[in-house]
Amino acid sequence: MNFDERTLTDAVLARMDGCEDARFVTIMTSLVRHLHDFVREVELTEAEWMEGIRFLTATGQKCDDKRQEFILLSDTLGVSMLVDAINHRFAKGVTETTVFGPFFVEGAPHVAQWADIRGGAKGAPCFVSGTVRDIDGAPVADAVIDVWQSDGEEGFYDVQKPGAEPYCRAKIHTDASGRFGFLTVKPISYPVPTDGPVGGMLLTMGRHPYRPAHIHTMIQGEGFAPLTTHLFVAGDKYLDSDAVFGVKDSLVVDFVTNPAGRAPDGSTMNEPFVTATYDFVLARA
Amino acid sequence: MNFDERTLTDAVLARMDGCEDARFVTIMTSLVRHLHDFVREVELTEAEWMEGIRFLTATGQKCDDKRQEFILLSDTLGVSMLVDAINHRFAKGVTETTVFGPFFVEGAPHVAQWADIRGGAKGAPCFVSGTVRDIDGAPVADAVIDVWQSDGEEGFYDVQKPGAEPYCRAKIHTDASGRFGFLTVKPISYPVPTDGPVGGMLLTMGRHPYRPAHIHTMIQGEGFAPLTTHLFVAGDKYLDSDAVFGVKDSLVVDFVTNPAGRAPDGSTMNEPFVTATYDFVLARA
Repeated sequence: MNFDERTLTDAVLARMDGCEDARFVTIMTSLVRHLHDFVREVELTEAEWMEGIRFLTATGQKCDDKRQEFILLSDTLGVSMLVDAINHRFAKGVTETTVFGPFFVEGAPHVAQWADIRGGAKGAPCFVSGTVRDIDGAPVADAVIDVWQSDGEEGFYDVQKPGAEPYCRAKIHTDASGRFGFLTVKPISYPVPTDGPVGGMLLTMGRHPYRPAHIHTMIQGEGFAPLTTHLFVAGDKYLDSDAVFGVKDSLVVDFVTNPAGRAPDGSTMNEPFVTATYDFVLARA
Repeated sequence: MNFDERTLTDAVLARMDGCEDARFVTIMTSLVRHLHDFVREVELTEAEWMEGIRFLTATGQKCDDKRQEFILLSDTLGVSMLVDAINHRFAKGVTETTVFGPFFVEGAPHVAQWADIRGGAKGAPCFVSGTVRDIDGAPVADAVIDVWQSDGEEGFYDVQKPGAEPYCRAKIHTDASGRFGFLTVKPISYPVPTDGPVGGMLLTMGRHPYRPAHIHTMIQGEGFAPLTTHLFVAGDKYLDSDAVFGVKDSLVVDFVTNPAGRAPDGSTMNEPFVTATYDFVLARA
């Protein structure tokens, strides 16, 4: 008892003497020290503390089966990208990673090479193709590439539109040469959800909520570390100010507009179409 | 773009360049630095990050109009007592403060001197009395003392019992000599709520959830700083291990059991009764 603003921190930590989970003690010790240091450093007032309690409560209560406001908070404070960086220290040459985001859905359909995955999504037709290789350049056959993205006209994922049929989601398999290709729409930049507490925080910070246009990919090849990343659209106005700090030069891809004519899948397009290519490199597991 | 685990923190902070609220920038700068340092220090795994997201979400969703799980988290991690200490650096001689807690209710009835505030609460009858003075010993007349506490048999506050009439809550006014007195029940120690995420955290930490027996008081006198504190029952087995780190020696009071007979309010008790006295000292506003 009789803890003061200096002795309180060690008193809290000493209460974990009976804890049997050493990793939990490590995590909570660091967390409590930083949390207390933060309070001391800014000399948090009681009104500010209460505002913090209200913000955290509202953030939790905004979450449901289709919305994860705490992940959005983590994303917009750079915590998600930090966790990503720490957990994927791949060798130079391996494709860089970026945030997973909140819009992945398990169980997307397996589709054939050059499948049209647009569903009902509007936007410029876009052929995406490339290869998956290992660090030595050898093709990775039968790697599974989960693809998901927004539409190309409103910037919404299917799960953001109540009652919409799934669109722009699929599992593509590489062939024996490590090649893949699919037809989608060219994604556009879009704002993260701003109708919750995190939107209010961004507004107070003087920040915009936009993410530059991108296609999500998660690649799993047997014997390789899973790779979660994006392909960003070169020239997007938000590349330098992504609301979740996810952009890396090496992931920015030219999305080239072509006149009507012969498409990469061998078909003939009667309208202009976009092409983008990317060669992924996986790290061994 | 191209932020790595070292450069990301400054990138997040630089995004507040357009923020017009200087205090908000100060608070968020410290918070983001400590949050990122925590993640780097423990090298948080993706699974641990997800567990943190789940914990925070569940904590928010446990809150309702009668339950504040984030305040409980703050209390049990010592943050509430730290904020209390930082915001009440009173001169030596002024009564020490402690946590406000989650069970205060606005609008308790104003009652007369020596009122019986027990309502339906069970427990040993207990006469609490004393004075309210300033730092020089002069009485503070017509100070309002908000009192609230658990019952003396089960350790519940009225608001924890669905449908219960209010009990053990009142506003007592000091008389011209700064004196006050009321009849209540002797409080008992009780566990903080353990059926939510915070209960799970305490269990994993190897900690018990108990608070030593106490009476809450919040005193407001004209021209004085409000004083929020507890009177703790001497001898309680949890004084050295209060789940919320709130105990101070100077707030531990002898609750004396007396045989049946003349009580402090002048009445005659037919059963044994408890007495406790405390002299509060207020700081000038």
